[in-house]
Amino acid sequence: MSGIARDLISLGVLHETQTVHGQGRPSILLDLHPEGAFFVGISLLEDPAPMVLSDFNGNIVARRTMPLSRDPEVIADLISEALPKLLAERKDAAQKLYGLGVALSGFVDERQASCVQSTLLGWQDVPLANIIRQKSGIDTFIENDAKAVAVSEKLFGNARDIRNFSVVSFDDGIGCAHFIGGKLYRGNHGGAGEIAHCTIEPGGSPCRCGKRGCLDTVASLKAIKEMAKAEGLSCHSMNDLETEASLGNAAAIRVLHRAGNALGLAIAHLIQFNDPGMILITHVEGRFDGLFGTVMRQSVEANVLPRYAGQTPIRTQRVDGDLWARGAASIAAHNFLIGPTPN
Amino acid sequence: MSGIARDLISLGVLHETQTVHGQGRPSILLDLHPEGAFFVGISLLEDPAPMVLSDFNGNIVARRTMPLSRDPEVIADLISEALPKLLAERKDAAQKLYGLGVALSGFVDERQASCVQSTLLGWQDVPLANIIRQKSGIDTFIENDAKAVAVSEKLFGNARDIRNFSVVSFDDGIGCAHFIGGKLYRGNHGGAGEIAHCTIEPGGSPCRCGKRGCLDTVASLKAIKEMAKAEGLSCHSMNDLETEASLGNAAAIRVLHRAGNALGLAIAHLIQFNDPGMILITHVEGRFDGLFGTVMRQSVEANVLPRYAGQTPIRTQRVDGDLWARGAASIAAHNFLIGPTPN
Repeated sequence: MSGIARDLISLGVLHETQTVHGQGRPSILLDLHPEGAFFVGISLLEDPAPMVLSDFNGNIVARRTMPLSRDPEVIADLISEALPKLLAERKDAAQKLYGLGVALSGFVDERQASCVQSTLLGWQDVPLANIIRQKSGIDTFIENDAKAVAVSEKLFGNARDIRNFSVVSFDDGIGCAHFIGGKLYRGNHGGAGEIAHCTIEPGGSPCRCGKRGCLDTVASLKAIKEMAKAEGLSCHSMNDLETEASLGNAAAIRVLHRAGNALGLAIAHLIQFNDPGMILITHVEGRFDGLFGTVMRQSVEANVLPRYAGQTPIRTQRVDGDLWARGAASIAAHNFLIGPTPN
Repeated sequence: MSGIARDLISLGVLHETQTVHGQGRPSILLDLHPEGAFFVGISLLEDPAPMVLSDFNGNIVARRTMPLSRDPEVIADLISEALPKLLAERKDAAQKLYGLGVALSGFVDERQASCVQSTLLGWQDVPLANIIRQKSGIDTFIENDAKAVAVSEKLFGNARDIRNFSVVSFDDGIGCAHFIGGKLYRGNHGGAGEIAHCTIEPGGSPCRCGKRGCLDTVASLKAIKEMAKAEGLSCHSMNDLETEASLGNAAAIRVLHRAGNALGLAIAHLIQFNDPGMILITHVEGRFDGLFGTVMRQSVEANVLPRYAGQTPIRTQRVDGDLWARGAASIAAHNFLIGPTPN
């Protein structure tokens, strides 16, 4: 047994489950002790900002919210203030708190310490992790939202045994992150997975990024709702839109076709370019069991090399509002387990 | 010094160049001895098939051709027959021959042993490396053409110090391969990099793969020549076409715009999806210093997130006809140095 394993056992983080006798030395199977370590995860994607306490199996054992701020110092103060209340909800959590993670919309450096750029927060080169660490005294790491979800799926979710996969988060915007060779892949400027701004309809609708026809302008939840509104539909959710489409409303059908087609084409590109072992689409209030999902899947099949068709599992997973905060906590857990994940 | 280094020095493969004194133990800088090991590379992409002898710096020290066959047994016989003649051209090469590589158009398994599928050769699951090894007695590895070129660029070429990069080979067809985290990335079915069949003109021209609008139907050298012919132009090369365009021939300008636009859009996708540190376009008879290259670069800039624009170096490199055979030899060298490269 390695020294690290012995240390983790004495900390109560690992525990022995079984001794296996085979060739050579008997092996001891080790498992993470769910209550051996706790992590805090905070999402800066919503206001108020969700804050969760996660055990070592990724289970959320307590949750709170705190006000959202764009001022890093204020964020650190708010966290330091809310932290004792969150930890009080679980016995021993304060003693076994081994890290804090923050998920945000934007680019993060490979040390998971600084926010290089965030349009939503109006930041450029903000060393958020250090600021929080100094005020809270807790080891802190930050990560881009989609990348945090990918790490969470790799550690605790559907991707545990898959070395190469991509997560596509379908929400008001579209996020994406890749695991390649068992590691989170950031790319050279932290931009790997920025599929939201790939041109999917050349010459199409203007995008807030400055160019036209980005995936985000046609296939994000926000874009779908805006297209529905422009068609004169009073649909406030995917549910409404799917219902209208199922009743034969041509405008609703048109919107869902356009969006599903665009998302399917982007996913087909992902398959052609990277040949991942799985694509996991996470969504909080999407719907993939109706026309949108059918068109999306047909568009994937129609736009990949025919001999690839059907080879790449595409899973959709409805997630609760804890998604980003849970992802943030998994970044802290990941760093505690194996250190940061630069390429 | 490690045991492996000592072994390689005694084989004459490594040699000491300099002793560096700094903190701790003095370090000895080691360098590969160019004449310490030789490798044979064969390209099954042309008829006759080029066959080169490469030293350990990737220099071609001898070359021959052999007839191309689609029968694996015949290929192995032809190699065994040609090998002594190739090796005779360089003193000591026969004694220091440490491997043989084969580059082909198609999918190769991650052990670099079997051709999973090749349309050009009409193969499915052909264990080519073993067949050649049995007849020639030489350690043999096979690889997809674009992946072989990427390995060659990583070992001996422009990408030596770059961990994440993609090679795009612009030829009658378009190939692509990724290095990610310093390793060749194959994807889950060996299909990573198959950008030739990403849909770049939805509903566009039919492709031999079965779908429509693939990059290959608009931007490959073959497609460009066919588009020129369809426009009634008597251009037999990129040179002719660029000349016509520079003289104001609207048809030539149209063809180069359409092709350059398509290639640029695909490369923009590559940047958005994977954020590589460099894109290297290799070509044997392309031209990137005229209208085609300008349109391609403009299309890249116009289709990446504006804050990425210009961040990813795009290099074009004219290569000689040895490209694929040299790549094949580098696969053998790579395996000799660090073993096969599965993900």
